[in-house]
Amino acid sequence: MLPCLVPRNAVRRRDDRDHTDRIALSAATTDGVHLRTEDVRAWIAERREANAFHVERIPFAEMDQWWFEGATGNLVHRSGRFFAIEGLHVVEHDGPHGDGPYREWQQPVIKQPEVGILGILAKEFNGVLHFLMQAKMEPGNPNLVQLSPTVQATRSNYTKAHGGTNVKLIEYFAPPDPERVIVDVLQAEQGSWFFRKSNRNMIVETVDDVPQEDDFCWLTLGQIAELMHEDETINMNARSVLSCLPYHDTAPGALFSDVQLLSWFTNERSRHDVRAHRIPLKDVGGWKQGVEAIEHEDGRFFNVRAVAVKGSNREKISWTQPLLESVGEGVVAFLMREIEGVPHVLVHARADAGFLDTVELAPTVQRTPLNYAHLPAENRPPFLDFVQDAPRSRIRYEAVHSEEGGRFLNARARYLVVDADGTIDPPPGFAWVTPAQLTALTRHGHYVSVEARTLLACINAAVAQPRGTAALDSLSVHGKARA
Amino acid sequence: MLPCLVPRNAVRRRDDRDHTDRIALSAATTDGVHLRTEDVRAWIAERREANAFHVERIPFAEMDQWWFEGATGNLVHRSGRFFAIEGLHVVEHDGPHGDGPYREWQQPVIKQPEVGILGILAKEFNGVLHFLMQAKMEPGNPNLVQLSPTVQATRSNYTKAHGGTNVKLIEYFAPPDPERVIVDVLQAEQGSWFFRKSNRNMIVETVDDVPQEDDFCWLTLGQIAELMHEDETINMNARSVLSCLPYHDTAPGALFSDVQLLSWFTNERSRHDVRAHRIPLKDVGGWKQGVEAIEHEDGRFFNVRAVAVKGSNREKISWTQPLLESVGEGVVAFLMREIEGVPHVLVHARADAGFLDTVELAPTVQRTPLNYAHLPAENRPPFLDFVQDAPRSRIRYEAVHSEEGGRFLNARARYLVVDADGTIDPPPGFAWVTPAQLTALTRHGHYVSVEARTLLACINAAVAQPRGTAALDSLSVHGKARA
Repeated sequence: MLPCLVPRNAVRRRDDRDHTDRIALSAATTDGVHLRTEDVRAWIAERREANAFHVERIPFAEMDQWWFEGATGNLVHRSGRFFAIEGLHVVEHDGPHGDGPYREWQQPVIKQPEVGILGILAKEFNGVLHFLMQAKMEPGNPNLVQLSPTVQATRSNYTKAHGGTNVKLIEYFAPPDPERVIVDVLQAEQGSWFFRKSNRNMIVETVDDVPQEDDFCWLTLGQIAELMHEDETINMNARSVLSCLPYHDTAPGALFSDVQLLSWFTNERSRHDVRAHRIPLKDVGGWKQGVEAIEHEDGRFFNVRAVAVKGSNREKISWTQPLLESVGEGVVAFLMREIEGVPHVLVHARADAGFLDTVELAPTVQRTPLNYAHLPAENRPPFLDFVQDAPRSRIRYEAVHSEEGGRFLNARARYLVVDADGTIDPPPGFAWVTPAQLTALTRHGHYVSVEARTLLACINAAVAQPRGTAALDSLSVHGKARA
Repeated sequence: MLPCLVPRNAVRRRDDRDHTDRIALSAATTDGVHLRTEDVRAWIAERREANAFHVERIPFAEMDQWWFEGATGNLVHRSGRFFAIEGLHVVEHDGPHGDGPYREWQQPVIKQPEVGILGILAKEFNGVLHFLMQAKMEPGNPNLVQLSPTVQATRSNYTKAHGGTNVKLIEYFAPPDPERVIVDVLQAEQGSWFFRKSNRNMIVETVDDVPQEDDFCWLTLGQIAELMHEDETINMNARSVLSCLPYHDTAPGALFSDVQLLSWFTNERSRHDVRAHRIPLKDVGGWKQGVEAIEHEDGRFFNVRAVAVKGSNREKISWTQPLLESVGEGVVAFLMREIEGVPHVLVHARADAGFLDTVELAPTVQRTPLNYAHLPAENRPPFLDFVQDAPRSRIRYEAVHSEEGGRFLNARARYLVVDADGTIDPPPGFAWVTPAQLTALTRHGHYVSVEARTLLACINAAVAQPRGTAALDSLSVHGKARA
């Protein structure tokens, strides 16, 4: 299972200039060899029909193999597989080890120790890189089927430890051919819902003839960029992987050098002292457990629910599982401004309880407004009102995306890029950085949060689309499916 | 306390070419403005005399303020400050979440939640960067006084939360001037002795007139490079900080591109499933607690000891504290070979229980031979015998360094760079990388282990010394103080 890095007796360039040139070409190509972009929506709808999935909420007691384990009350699978819902006790300290403010709370959290693979297969057709996307059903997606990476598999899946069916095309990723790797990095997922979960985000090229399967289609980056403007079309895992593409930085620089940016980030990581301890789910204070849901006492944040899934083309034909259900649509936004013509976004060094290493770079705003509706204006999160009240003319990008449908039920958020007008001084914990700087950081884990990666993928897609023309204008193309 | 990244309306270069050019000049300069290199040893001896420290081992019961806490038996300070010695239960899993082999053990471990600052102040004299080193006593150093960074301070220290004395020159580091930061990164320390400890490694430049204090001296990198060949002269914290210096890569490339290297590393991180849980010290199996020491039942690994320190120029005049005492001299070595004339070292993706994120890149060999003396040859760690039996002609670098004297007692290791003869195929978990690739990774935490950073600092120092000449020959200068 190890990639075989056979020593040859030659050195090669350390950078990936060849990759960045071919990625730029793919981003500039909006005609794919397989499907026209305008036909993708119909194709997804066709796959949705072909597989006829049905998902319904059920009481916890009707789950098969899942139960609230005796001593802890944790919601687990009897096999010990998949994931568990446990409790988390979180304290953020003020001085001397942090600069606070002091915060303390308890919440349910998803514990999933396995590192999975999210892999996109790439291949040149007519000299242009195409990416193999899968029309995949996930029970928590409001529209069930979205475009996912070629492969989404846990380690248990792909090592077939539990006798599951084969994961299609996994052989390109476990292990990857070192000569064909474009992206391969462990990236963390939602720090407010997961406890220290990472997945391996991969893009691997092939020159093989890959058999054409019904649920798969090859798309250029230009096509994917257009689809990124559609609501609920590109799933979270695909957005995360695509955000790690090594786009070449064409800007002359940035407000801060990379060393300055890393120094600011190091300071943010140093000044937050967040300690999160797993506790039994039954001991979580402030939440109440019912027959069909575990809910926050004030109805905020999320609910733990159970669903039954009946389908036909997944690893199992039917199953039940828990999901975290969002209590309201989220708002996730970058403020953006130009500095000497170079676009910058306002990142927030956010300390979520489930992060492995204290803080990650998050969007300017990342909130579920419902959770803050009870607060007076002066206590509301910074920039939330600015983003929510932004006139249409200030919105450079907008689409509704949903979070991972294998864990989250109807977890939708409006993703936005909003013009900041150049007048905003960053408060503590915020800094202006270029999308190229964020892209460079996605080579490494624990820098760019999964929500920021979604926006980065959207920005890179939009900017890449009309190469050589006024790039930012394209950001004002809105999601077409807004109600 | 926040660095104030004031937005200006201009972009700058993202890279740090200015820094790398000036670092190269400093490395090429072996005449400093302050002390001649050959006089540094005498100066350190003079500082050792001037401060007249005395350290002695004492029974645990004679410690002041430290005690074995009732319920857990953890060795803690009554104030909750400093650090604690607790227990750790470690399991490395085989399939499906890892590829093993299965390992399980318990051990004492140091828990220190505070992020400290290890900061070196830099300043140009006669157009050449000099670095301000401190002659600092640490009770666990066999020779008590070594050259440390300008500042070594915990957050409690420098925020004066506990009313301690001022930390000299801390104002340059907390916060640093963003215009003057050369290095600023959180780096982890020993994963076999600490549970997830990181310190902030910093180099910050100044143009101020810095008052000349008795225990401080300005040295060029060329001077420090020469001193890195002396035994037990540059302390661990200084070696760690110096390893993060952004040397420019003058080689044409490497055996693997950076993307390939990161992909290999991602695979190594993914395939190890190490779970470490803190447990009460009193429950640690396989160790026995005596009046003066906590020892492994077979006398291996390390002992927990207590010492009393009497001194004059530290924050406290006298104190007692626990230290981890090494049971034998360690061997830490990189194998090195040239590929098309470019030096490469053989890194080991090592999974230590105390690492925050599973594996870090460690030296080829990092062992205390005594711990393996009982094993038959075929079960001994890879390359240990190769390194120990290496003839003098194969040794490119050698010096004895000790680990952090504030936590470890007589923890000495022979640090070596050994010629590999170009015939070694890396076994699983090992890869040939260039020192420049490791240097690039030191910009980020959790890639290059503290032991590998020491060797990297030694290699960069040695290579940097004779710029434009046959660089590697200088690596064969041996520590002069060997017995």
